[in-house]
Amino acid sequence: MPGHRGKVYLVGAGPGAADLLTLRAARLLAEADIVLHDALVGDAILALAARATKIEVGKRAGRESRPQRFINKRLIEAARTHRVVVRLKGGDPMMFGRAQEEIDALHAAGIEVEVVPGITAALASGAALRVSLTRRGLSRSVAFVTSRTGPGEPASDWAASLLACDTGVLYMGAGEVAAISRVLVYRGMAADTPVAVVSNASLAGERCEIGTLGTLESLCQHDDGPATIVIGEVLRGLVAPAPCDLHFVSA
Amino acid sequence: MPGHRGKVYLVGAGPGAADLLTLRAARLLAEADIVLHDALVGDAILALAARATKIEVGKRAGRESRPQRFINKRLIEAARTHRVVVRLKGGDPMMFGRAQEEIDALHAAGIEVEVVPGITAALASGAALRVSLTRRGLSRSVAFVTSRTGPGEPASDWAASLLACDTGVLYMGAGEVAAISRVLVYRGMAADTPVAVVSNASLAGERCEIGTLGTLESLCQHDDGPATIVIGEVLRGLVAPAPCDLHFVSA
Repeated sequence: MPGHRGKVYLVGAGPGAADLLTLRAARLLAEADIVLHDALVGDAILALAARATKIEVGKRAGRESRPQRFINKRLIEAARTHRVVVRLKGGDPMMFGRAQEEIDALHAAGIEVEVVPGITAALASGAALRVSLTRRGLSRSVAFVTSRTGPGEPASDWAASLLACDTGVLYMGAGEVAAISRVLVYRGMAADTPVAVVSNASLAGERCEIGTLGTLESLCQHDDGPATIVIGEVLRGLVAPAPCDLHFVSA
Repeated sequence: MPGHRGKVYLVGAGPGAADLLTLRAARLLAEADIVLHDALVGDAILALAARATKIEVGKRAGRESRPQRFINKRLIEAARTHRVVVRLKGGDPMMFGRAQEEIDALHAAGIEVEVVPGITAALASGAALRVSLTRRGLSRSVAFVTSRTGPGEPASDWAASLLACDTGVLYMGAGEVAAISRVLVYRGMAADTPVAVVSNASLAGERCEIGTLGTLESLCQHDDGPATIVIGEVLRGLVAPAPCDLHFVSA
């Protein structure tokens, strides 16, 4: 229909468990005419979009994924042909996705965008560990960082960010733990700083490996799906049984 | 009943809007026998706990609130007399609450605890601004910090944390914007660094004030309820109309 414009909802799918979607996200999925989703969004979540056309548009770590401009183009097309368009992204849309490029492309095309926040992996990791990321007396700051940069992106001093905050959470770092551990120790972080690797947070295969910066490499032996690395003194008191499958690796 | 033990669910109520609760949080509220909640949790959310006894246990910024040991004691009592106990905290339970003290007290009393993550204010602020906190090319790190420390707590170098991360979000800082601006500029952050003050994120009175570090003080003239201060270059491109009531204050 000429001049027709749908609205795009950029929706956070949360860490994985379908019931960690927000009520708003679930309602929008039920109302959606079309859903463009990341590869990592699970079937139980997609099933909530009962009447929508569902299109996977990337991206999965370590796999060839569609160029961002292709995704932007598909979103604009979807908004020109559908009323309720949901762009469903893992975690929170404004954390470590390429949401801004999609928002900017939609705005440039005159299409309205609304953002629905979601539970980002760091929060699901804190819940799995039952550790406050900002425990009083130990932490008044937490950094969410990634050591990865895309092609053409300026290098980021992720180590400086982690060193300057009381607690740190590394996203997408499980593939480069040896380098992460080495750089942080070289830059002055104590090798006995407690760390946790939380993989598949909130999902059936959730696993928490507890150790120290010095043992970090041994905590990530298996390819266990998406993982966060939590670093900081808030983890030192971690003696109570956690709900996830906890494994302690001594220094 | 002797030997009876309930289970305590430490649940994040999200930033304010009732439909930004997770599905899991809503289900637990519906099942709850008793809900102990922060003062800031709204009525629309509490109404979801239809059959529960509801008890407000503090805390509200700038008001006399109950000592933490009183809250811990009430939680343990609740778990000894009820089956499903929900401890409902604003935002995410593991971010800037005193969750750890509650978890530790419950564990010491032999009571099972499960944490249900929630949308923390920083994520709701990013959604309100429609700005990715980790925009590619500009930000690979975001710090969530507070400049407040409790009695007896060691001082935290919140300025160093903000300076070392590409994006910063200050919690509970609206009352001390003059000092925040002065300290950050003194420590070397450019006075024209873009900032946003987001108050009442996700609620009817949501308001986004956009300016620079140098104009930060003028952005917080009114007592506008809970607010976050977002700082960083990711805000510089903020020209598209945002869904919240946007106000630009020039340097």
